[in-house]
Amino acid sequence: MHPIDAATALTQFEAGRFRGETHDAYWNVTGPFGGLTAATLLKAAMLHPKRQHLPLSATVNFCAPLTKGKFEIEVHEDRANRSTQFFSFRLIQDAATIITGSAVFAARPQTFEHQPHTMPEVKQPEAIEPMSRPTPLAWLSRYEFRFDRGAPKLRSRPDDPLGDARSNVWVRDRPERPLDFVSLMAMSDTFFARPFHVLGALVPFGTISISTYFHVDGDDLAAAGSDYLLGIAEAHILRKGFSNQVAELWSRGGKLLASSSQIVYFRDKK
Amino acid sequence: MHPIDAATALTQFEAGRFRGETHDAYWNVTGPFGGLTAATLLKAAMLHPKRQHLPLSATVNFCAPLTKGKFEIEVHEDRANRSTQFFSFRLIQDAATIITGSAVFAARPQTFEHQPHTMPEVKQPEAIEPMSRPTPLAWLSRYEFRFDRGAPKLRSRPDDPLGDARSNVWVRDRPERPLDFVSLMAMSDTFFARPFHVLGALVPFGTISISTYFHVDGDDLAAAGSDYLLGIAEAHILRKGFSNQVAELWSRGGKLLASSSQIVYFRDKK
Repeated sequence: MHPIDAATALTQFEAGRFRGETHDAYWNVTGPFGGLTAATLLKAAMLHPKRQHLPLSATVNFCAPLTKGKFEIEVHEDRANRSTQFFSFRLIQDAATIITGSAVFAARPQTFEHQPHTMPEVKQPEAIEPMSRPTPLAWLSRYEFRFDRGAPKLRSRPDDPLGDARSNVWVRDRPERPLDFVSLMAMSDTFFARPFHVLGALVPFGTISISTYFHVDGDDLAAAGSDYLLGIAEAHILRKGFSNQVAELWSRGGKLLASSSQIVYFRDKK
Repeated sequence: MHPIDAATALTQFEAGRFRGETHDAYWNVTGPFGGLTAATLLKAAMLHPKRQHLPLSATVNFCAPLTKGKFEIEVHEDRANRSTQFFSFRLIQDAATIITGSAVFAARPQTFEHQPHTMPEVKQPEAIEPMSRPTPLAWLSRYEFRFDRGAPKLRSRPDDPLGDARSNVWVRDRPERPLDFVSLMAMSDTFFARPFHVLGALVPFGTISISTYFHVDGDDLAAAGSDYLLGIAEAHILRKGFSNQVAELWSRGGKLLASSSQIVYFRDKK
């Protein structure tokens, strides 16, 4: 079993109610990697007995730290019509709400198709060295990162130039695994926090709210397979304790598979 | 009273429960302008008796059409810590869920500040003719639109070139009104649907889910006053019935006030 499947394993003990447990394979500093948690919530919605259609969007709000151990997820179908379904969900640990959010599922009929945005020109992943893993954080070993631009770099002196707010990075599961909605959701949060990149320091930071939009159906996922995706992540602003991040995930062939936006908490003192 | 204040008027009949009513001043084709509805939900969260801090982000899911008449909004505080608060909300009409969503409020301390993204160079609003209002839709009269790029244009023949997926447009309330979080939320959804721009036809379309991120506090809003904001809206992809949109709202002085992303339903046949 791939680590992401083990780490997002859920038991439905009642319609729309799930039990899960944090997994060490995706451990971050004080809890699981947030993208893995977001993916677990999306997976719960996908497992809801009334779910039809494919994930179209998901918003996940990180209200409080998830700690090591068991948790429950409740998924509620708020509304459905013939082609679209709306769910809300929450993750509960020790009787307290830790995560909230919502997801939309939709049928994806053939329609007019147009992609005005094009993938930036970057070096192929094979021509880039993978990022070394300087820390023992488990989740960093669950992905391969090959930075074409904006690799994280510590600033050692206050007058060192600020780090690049943008990263172009090839990413894939490690070990390799065919792409699905769960792994795509997780990957949409694999970009290291922009305040860390810009400040070049391990200041306090954390995703507060992320929204990811899926532009794929099953055929598109199958076409992406287990190849690298190109991730583009950029902060537009860091201001008054928060930074935004807009991100895109592209297939190597230049199809936009997912786009995402998030707001990140940061403080500038360690 | 400004129309936006009249149209978002709410009565709190119980802690976190509000009554409101649709208003003709922001009427769109079959219901109120979605941005106004999103702003009404944000306003309800702001009026929650436990609310502290300032809006940081809001996600609004348009589950079903809101129709003319009364509605209720329920706001629930999911979690709070010293500096951040998480709310979820829903709008109910005739005992059915019409809108769901969530909002985060946060304290905005002074921290390191950096805006790597810069406002594009555009003509000043005074040098651009306001968009004429070719339709009687009331909400179009509640805003002044001055397009520097990507004004909507109907395509009359199938071989006409596709419309621009990007718009740069100066926008302000009409009549003018000092900016606040409610009007900023509404403005983040004033960009006409990208499928309409690209296809140049009044095909069926509608916002499914929007997330808006606020980069301002009270001082920033006061500085923006009732001046024009520059809106940038762009679709990256139209595919299988849905289109994304990323948007930004800038002060004339070049400060990024809000950013937003949404997913839009469309069909390519009338």
